[in-house]
Amino acid sequence: MTNADSLLARITSPADLRALTDEDLEQLAAEMRSELIGVVRRRSAHFASNLGVVELCLALHQAFDFTRDRLIWDTGHQIYPHKLITGRAAELHTIRTKGGLMGYPNPSESPFDLFMTGHAGCAPSTAMGLRVGDELTGHPERHSVAVIGDGAFPSGIVFEALNNAGGLRTKMLVVLNDNKMSICPPVGGVANYLDRARMSSTYHDWNKRLKSLVSSVPLVGEHAERWVQQIKDAIKASLNHGMLFEELGFTYLGPIDGHDLKGLRSYLEKVKAMDGPILLHVLTNKGHGFEPAVKDPVKFHAPAPFRKAEDGYVPLKASSSRTYTDAVSAALHAACGRDPKVAIVTAAMCEGNKLQKIRDEYPSQFFDVGICEGHAVAFAAGMAKAGARPVVDIYSTFLQRSYDQIFQEVALQDLPVVFCLDRAGLVGADGPTHHGTYDLASMRVFPNMVVMAPGDQRDVEPMIEFALGHDSPVSIRYPRAGLEAVDREPQPIELGQAEVLEWETDGMILACGALLGACVRASDRLRERYGLRVGVVNARFVKPLDRNVVCKAIEEAAFVLTVEEGCLMGGFGSAVLEAAGDAGIPAAHVRRLGLPDRFVLHAERDEQLAEVGLDVDGIVRAALDQARRAGLHVPDLDPEAEAEHDADLDGHAPVQASGANGAAERANGHANGAASKPAPAALTAQG
Amino acid sequence: MTNADSLLARITSPADLRALTDEDLEQLAAEMRSELIGVVRRRSAHFASNLGVVELCLALHQAFDFTRDRLIWDTGHQIYPHKLITGRAAELHTIRTKGGLMGYPNPSESPFDLFMTGHAGCAPSTAMGLRVGDELTGHPERHSVAVIGDGAFPSGIVFEALNNAGGLRTKMLVVLNDNKMSICPPVGGVANYLDRARMSSTYHDWNKRLKSLVSSVPLVGEHAERWVQQIKDAIKASLNHGMLFEELGFTYLGPIDGHDLKGLRSYLEKVKAMDGPILLHVLTNKGHGFEPAVKDPVKFHAPAPFRKAEDGYVPLKASSSRTYTDAVSAALHAACGRDPKVAIVTAAMCEGNKLQKIRDEYPSQFFDVGICEGHAVAFAAGMAKAGARPVVDIYSTFLQRSYDQIFQEVALQDLPVVFCLDRAGLVGADGPTHHGTYDLASMRVFPNMVVMAPGDQRDVEPMIEFALGHDSPVSIRYPRAGLEAVDREPQPIELGQAEVLEWETDGMILACGALLGACVRASDRLRERYGLRVGVVNARFVKPLDRNVVCKAIEEAAFVLTVEEGCLMGGFGSAVLEAAGDAGIPAAHVRRLGLPDRFVLHAERDEQLAEVGLDVDGIVRAALDQARRAGLHVPDLDPEAEAEHDADLDGHAPVQASGANGAAERANGHANGAASKPAPAALTAQG
Repeated sequence: MTNADSLLARITSPADLRALTDEDLEQLAAEMRSELIGVVRRRSAHFASNLGVVELCLALHQAFDFTRDRLIWDTGHQIYPHKLITGRAAELHTIRTKGGLMGYPNPSESPFDLFMTGHAGCAPSTAMGLRVGDELTGHPERHSVAVIGDGAFPSGIVFEALNNAGGLRTKMLVVLNDNKMSICPPVGGVANYLDRARMSSTYHDWNKRLKSLVSSVPLVGEHAERWVQQIKDAIKASLNHGMLFEELGFTYLGPIDGHDLKGLRSYLEKVKAMDGPILLHVLTNKGHGFEPAVKDPVKFHAPAPFRKAEDGYVPLKASSSRTYTDAVSAALHAACGRDPKVAIVTAAMCEGNKLQKIRDEYPSQFFDVGICEGHAVAFAAGMAKAGARPVVDIYSTFLQRSYDQIFQEVALQDLPVVFCLDRAGLVGADGPTHHGTYDLASMRVFPNMVVMAPGDQRDVEPMIEFALGHDSPVSIRYPRAGLEAVDREPQPIELGQAEVLEWETDGMILACGALLGACVRASDRLRERYGLRVGVVNARFVKPLDRNVVCKAIEEAAFVLTVEEGCLMGGFGSAVLEAAGDAGIPAAHVRRLGLPDRFVLHAERDEQLAEVGLDVDGIVRAALDQARRAGLHVPDLDPEAEAEHDADLDGHAPVQASGANGAAERANGHANGAASKPAPAALTAQG
Repeated sequence: MTNADSLLARITSPADLRALTDEDLEQLAAEMRSELIGVVRRRSAHFASNLGVVELCLALHQAFDFTRDRLIWDTGHQIYPHKLITGRAAELHTIRTKGGLMGYPNPSESPFDLFMTGHAGCAPSTAMGLRVGDELTGHPERHSVAVIGDGAFPSGIVFEALNNAGGLRTKMLVVLNDNKMSICPPVGGVANYLDRARMSSTYHDWNKRLKSLVSSVPLVGEHAERWVQQIKDAIKASLNHGMLFEELGFTYLGPIDGHDLKGLRSYLEKVKAMDGPILLHVLTNKGHGFEPAVKDPVKFHAPAPFRKAEDGYVPLKASSSRTYTDAVSAALHAACGRDPKVAIVTAAMCEGNKLQKIRDEYPSQFFDVGICEGHAVAFAAGMAKAGARPVVDIYSTFLQRSYDQIFQEVALQDLPVVFCLDRAGLVGADGPTHHGTYDLASMRVFPNMVVMAPGDQRDVEPMIEFALGHDSPVSIRYPRAGLEAVDREPQPIELGQAEVLEWETDGMILACGALLGACVRASDRLRERYGLRVGVVNARFVKPLDRNVVCKAIEEAAFVLTVEEGCLMGGFGSAVLEAAGDAGIPAAHVRRLGLPDRFVLHAERDEQLAEVGLDVDGIVRAALDQARRAGLHVPDLDPEAEAEHDADLDGHAPVQASGANGAAERANGHANGAASKPAPAALTAQG
């Protein structure tokens, strides 16, 4: 939607910036903001953080040449201005839509995007790696720059990188983009430290005066020279507050104004000539240039589409129906009220996990540890050991940062920590970095761990109650989706027990998690249209798996589908195969549906589910296919909807393509398996 | 082995310390050292670190009451003195042996051990959790103490915990046990920082003099008061160098002498009365009291049993045969020589991974990043992106700290980082924290990742060459074991291709990794003693799995065993079941051998392998059992060796016990499966 006459429309690559005057650049910055506001108000996207880095982005692309130099935007949701000036302005309106620009850096869009990121804190490490790699490959002329927000800064890996680069004196620049905000206001010692550091911008001129003052004092004795140095160091530390970084071996510069384009550029030019690792502390305003976002950067972090109303900016449509996140938050809120020993731990996702009410009403039971997932889990383990009942409420994908602490601090000690894994499965517009793909496969390997997934909204509160009453670690995973109630009289939650909704022998669908509703609708359609009687089980527990029900379904049904919103490798379906294998039951008629062995790109969640065959259509298609292989009679009612769509679903594609012994042998093997089953009940087409 | 007349023998709990005079305590410290030296010289165990903390341990147990207060020893290998005075002196000689004391804290040994640890850096987090948990459960009188070494300090989670505790002003004590050593000399900015901090112990008395000097200077103007505070802060920072911690909100005390028992005690008493988080910097000598260990703390970190010889202390027996670690190290050394773009990254395990020669001969290609596994992987990803060929050489269990970086920085970008996973499988005396149990299950879920395991020593170098030539991430895992060459003409390594050693139809063993030799010996015994013809496949690739070979084996053999030294849930065997399922091939006659769903305690590696049925006996037993179920005739030659031993191997025990539909049905299901197979060739007993 860029205006063809605009300056922005003429920027096809950062090289075009060189011809611009300072005035041009100011205009360009204004046009970029206008473009960002125009696009983001129409769709849910990251907003305030992008408005904050317009000048920083321009200054970086002017001072460096990123066709040669290296630039990593940490976390990556502040990448929009960078996309605007690296040839993607005309496509910005497609951002976060299927086939459009990704809301994060994406190397397949542009060579100016080096890493597809989304998780916080790794930029200093990768930038250091790029620098060292460039040295090893004979390109020491390449500069390496990481831009990282103050919210990500307390993340442990940042400290690890600073420690390493400071020790090796690696030539690199870390720009601390300090907008005084994580997604929520930042917490912890680093935040307090930066509060003080920001103050020091007014002290610049004191430096000289204090130095001369101290040097005028007559110093005597053998240590005089050392004393002077000590005092000088001390003044330096006191004045610019960069000591935290200086102590680690970084040269600290700043803080400087992140909206002063000329000032930024001159600092960046200076830095290029310096050796060793530099930390440049830049102060920006989240939402800069759009007053409502400056005033409420939490609301405008990634707002829903909005319009201007009399009383400010309001969402274009009323916020959608209640989600699993809402249900979990409500259940946790109730638990906090019931038991003062319940403690909720979040890693900077108070907003995303909708924990504000718990934070406000039960502040002593609420802990936002910042973007520090490893610590969050070990901290929770300590609480559990002391007899509290901690709940780590976190996105599935971010919990990956805690894999080792889940192993050692929780599972190995068999401590009752509850993990609420939000955004488990496909998350829609955020794309590959944010899908919760691996948690079922990763959590179930740990001894003592109970792994659950609610089948619908009515499972949520009972599962959380069960978990808080269970004396071992429990993980509960649920999707980024609206709530749905499956029509039934829910059975109580019992350890390791599945809930049988309907038992049939034509086929059985073993549903893991909130795709239960889709499975029930698929079963309905199979009966109504195709006359197939397909039962549905709400698995509830991935571990301990209900082997009774699973094995019985495999033994009695002509075919079985397992359905999960998680990776096919090692997930729920694999657990089902393992159970059959351990019991010595043939399971060749079991077909696993789940997430394929590739990264699923950004799109609407419904589009993604359809793409991987996890919508009702996909489940029906898979069931019909299995029914036919099992020798059941299936009328040919809807050939189009039933076709293809399964190549993607069976694991590691390249090998599968070349593997196996030809379709004939496979079909043969399969027929044998089916033949060993009890014959299915005769079918009558009813649809 | 404690002398019954000794003071040590009379210490049955820390309470007994209270009756001791200062002289008694000095004697006790000497006796403890003598006991440690006596025990450790006889068996391979952690040594120098334990000698270094004798006084610290005594002072902590005197100043605090850990029947009420909380004590966490980070990493935990310095736990021996603590074990000596918490009722376990008489058993110290059993340490690290099957059924004996664990070489790390173990809550099942003593209520004084709160967490079973082994990985570095989590103690501040768990200690903070204990403190907060004690507050939530109404026990604010309980003190919480973490003791952490300077080697573990740069670990990101430490910074996360300091940030959190500093921000919340949590009342807790972190003792920095600064012995100037990780296992190898420490690296990075923190190490340099501590170097400077240690110097400051001589500056204590300067404090007062400088303060009075500065306060005598006449200050004028509106900012005078602020200036004075600034200067005071500055002097403080300059003098005690605790600013790194003070900036995060900790009160810094030290550095103090960690072998001065009275001094330690008085500091600890002082700290108890203080509010908020305290960091007490204690200087200790690794190996204190045993001169050879002080002189060479790397060698004496965890030495093999040794004796005094004329030219110093020498190992009791010549070091054992070459290991997988040696073979990998040699291959990496060769690769560094061939290609200057190859870079080796270790996380403080230069010694354990035997990389000293690479460090010394190719220093520009060698990177020890400290105990910072998350950074190590993201750093390597950056290098790979720049065109270098990084190899992350790391223990399987420690790589767990990098799960998220393997996902985001490596697999998602499809970057050619090579992971060499040492200590994959059972590791012997280090026990549960150190086994490499989960890597096969965790690595294979990531798209783009190739997962390999050498079957024997002759696979090692070709696999590393293959990996360095492959343009995607590759992981290679190998055990803590001596090298073995399986008698064959090795086939070249081809992506996704297994190596068939022998093809038979009675049974097939699909061997994943270095248990190949045991599988071949099992096959030999099965043929010689029982007349069973059982083929063996060296799987080589877990991903992409050789589906051709796997499916063919399942189709042609009367039974199949999968054998892996990794968790049964989601591992190699599950990948085999998935392949069969995807191809529609009945696989009820496939039996998976691997690590059970529980933690395997410390013992010799051979004992552990036998315990979980992964030795030759166990494989033979499983094969005979499967052969009989498949209806093959097996002579009853060796009933004892063939009995039981399988209950453990089939997944989640509690559920399995209560699950399934009774033995009869299972056997029935199984018989059906077997009946659908081609009939096995007639057998003749030969043994």
